[in-house]
Amino acid sequence: MDFPVTRIKGGVGAPQGFRTSAVACGIKNPAVERLDLALISSDHPCHSAGTFTTNRVKAAPVRVTQAHLRRGDIRAIVANSGNANACTGVQGIQDANAMCKAVAGSLGLKKTEVGVCSTGVIGLPMPMMRIEPKFEELVAGLGPKNGPDVAKAIMTSDTQAKELAISFDLGDTRVRLGGCVKGAGMISPSMATMLCFITTDANIPTVTLRKAVLECVEESFNRITIDGDMSTNDTVLVLANGASGMTAVRRNGKRCRQFRRALRWLMLELAKAIVRDGERVTKFVTVKVEGARTYLDAKKVAEAVCKSALVKSSWNGGDPNWGRIIHAVGYSRARIREELIDIRIGGKPACLGGLQADTPMDELRAIVAEPEFEISIQLNQGTADYEMFSSDLSPEYIDFNRSEYAYWKQARKDGLV
Amino acid sequence: MDFPVTRIKGGVGAPQGFRTSAVACGIKNPAVERLDLALISSDHPCHSAGTFTTNRVKAAPVRVTQAHLRRGDIRAIVANSGNANACTGVQGIQDANAMCKAVAGSLGLKKTEVGVCSTGVIGLPMPMMRIEPKFEELVAGLGPKNGPDVAKAIMTSDTQAKELAISFDLGDTRVRLGGCVKGAGMISPSMATMLCFITTDANIPTVTLRKAVLECVEESFNRITIDGDMSTNDTVLVLANGASGMTAVRRNGKRCRQFRRALRWLMLELAKAIVRDGERVTKFVTVKVEGARTYLDAKKVAEAVCKSALVKSSWNGGDPNWGRIIHAVGYSRARIREELIDIRIGGKPACLGGLQADTPMDELRAIVAEPEFEISIQLNQGTADYEMFSSDLSPEYIDFNRSEYAYWKQARKDGLV
Repeated sequence: MDFPVTRIKGGVGAPQGFRTSAVACGIKNPAVERLDLALISSDHPCHSAGTFTTNRVKAAPVRVTQAHLRRGDIRAIVANSGNANACTGVQGIQDANAMCKAVAGSLGLKKTEVGVCSTGVIGLPMPMMRIEPKFEELVAGLGPKNGPDVAKAIMTSDTQAKELAISFDLGDTRVRLGGCVKGAGMISPSMATMLCFITTDANIPTVTLRKAVLECVEESFNRITIDGDMSTNDTVLVLANGASGMTAVRRNGKRCRQFRRALRWLMLELAKAIVRDGERVTKFVTVKVEGARTYLDAKKVAEAVCKSALVKSSWNGGDPNWGRIIHAVGYSRARIREELIDIRIGGKPACLGGLQADTPMDELRAIVAEPEFEISIQLNQGTADYEMFSSDLSPEYIDFNRSEYAYWKQARKDGLV
Repeated sequence: MDFPVTRIKGGVGAPQGFRTSAVACGIKNPAVERLDLALISSDHPCHSAGTFTTNRVKAAPVRVTQAHLRRGDIRAIVANSGNANACTGVQGIQDANAMCKAVAGSLGLKKTEVGVCSTGVIGLPMPMMRIEPKFEELVAGLGPKNGPDVAKAIMTSDTQAKELAISFDLGDTRVRLGGCVKGAGMISPSMATMLCFITTDANIPTVTLRKAVLECVEESFNRITIDGDMSTNDTVLVLANGASGMTAVRRNGKRCRQFRRALRWLMLELAKAIVRDGERVTKFVTVKVEGARTYLDAKKVAEAVCKSALVKSSWNGGDPNWGRIIHAVGYSRARIREELIDIRIGGKPACLGGLQADTPMDELRAIVAEPEFEISIQLNQGTADYEMFSSDLSPEYIDFNRSEYAYWKQARKDGLV
């Protein structure tokens, strides 16, 4: 960051005027006591923005939240893990609406002022009989210090809660920006199975906020991939309540640009945290494509490399296999010339002009043996570049994703299927 | 097949007027005695056709063979496994040319009448010092009964040789059609790391043959996927020498259509054999997409489903997970409506109108537990359809592809890197 920020505690609860809460409903499994229903609520009206999965199969909560944002601004978010409420038809829409309604009723808001998000298994009805009785406890638990509980409650196969908050000066007012994410599987560009909630007490008008969020998501969450699958539920929601007392930022003014930089930084940190905590991931790989003819060419190359099962397998094995990288570059459909391509691993040339470079194999192996390293691909065709963040693909990932039968057994027990 | 064909023995050696041979050079590892250099030669001039990888990074033998086919017809093919001769620059082109030249010299042909193919690791120079001394033995070994040796010599991670030959009547002449393939990894639509050689003693003029080959490849090899990676070396070569004595088929005449049907059938059988023998594959899955608005929409849906790591993981686990299938349909970019989609597994409804169907879970699980099953996806949007053949993705695949270090060690020992 090019201006001073201070890390603070509390995640989405850190900004002033936000209260949060989380409870355990046993959505996935009534026998297991873990937080799985969360609420974020602002004491003041908010400016709000959201981006959503581009998957044409959209979960019910995505459709409902999109509709609410079209109607105006939201100021509360209710979210659950354990069930995605996707492919659940009319019942799913009713359930998502019921969640908004219950929260809105208790908080004295309109239903359309509440956003709803779900994550978990696809195709099973929501066990509303275990969720509905918990709303009272959820709303009663609202407090300024429960941000970390929200991060915990939205976890699915994540191994750790992921949240971050910072404070910085916008003009002469100190503002706070907090966020939490969940990720793990189905992570791919154009939004992953990921939920991200961000709160701030800065005063950012809705139009400005929505533009900033689109731009920042493009440069953060759209640049990560774990398994190349794009989910039905991906959602990023940002609430700005202005509780810091500052005047509204002017569009494209200095404070606006500063806020956007802070937002991008926060989103990128959260996006990277998703990759690091990907399902059974052992490597965090930064792929930099440079010298492409166009931005789109650079992006195609980065995505092909980051999604190749063979490339990701070789990273898992600690193998500095530039042959597999260049073959993915070749099928990316970007305009490239094989004989101009340089590939560097951790800064050391592995391939120069499309041919094996002189760097001793053992040096390259030592780099790829590390948990984090960088691959740079210089196409020598132009000036466009693109950066992505990827992971390896491990035998344990496949093993982990072999069956969701346990979910179905529970749904059967619940009488839902 | 809608006309009678007889399976015969001999693979690419079965058609009249073809002789084949294979020898062991130790290309990958001099300590291991296995066939790795093969030759197919016609006693008569041939009509010939080829299709090649669309990867922009093309191996030297692909470039050389493409150039030869542009110059006219080829009548011999030399092929090796153990080294792909890809990303090997000027030296690679010289090596591929040297292989054609050596064969042409011994057989009394022009260099441009010989095609060359390589498969194996990318980025390492060909160990020509072990290949060149073997050409004499290779040509001396040419005989009509060595077809199966060719199928063996082109294997890499394949677990078994894959070949097929048939005879059938074209008009009043009995003709023979034989082929062999290698596949295993990097298998994806638009040609895989696969080599396929097909020979026939039918008399098919070059223009007609090339058109037929393009069409038949589109409906066979372009419809299979194992890991979604497309190789630098993929090649299909077809030689027709007319040695059966028949007159040339007329373009679009009855015999032409019959030959095309036989060729498509043979290619499809060989393509399916590649999937069944994919790297660490345990399932063979036919994915049928129906009711799409256009052919391209149907194809996009089939490819998204067949390439999804999450879908393939669930197949590996024997999990009839239609939720993951519909989520891949959603991100395929095809025009679909979630509420119209039906998904059937082995003919039994798993999802109707985008919702969980009534079929008991155990019935669906029993189907997916089988080594071969069919997924049909009815989009209910139009009349276009598309069929693909795919496999599961196993933890063992990743494990198998973690490192190619052994190749590099051997190349170092050979003084090539």
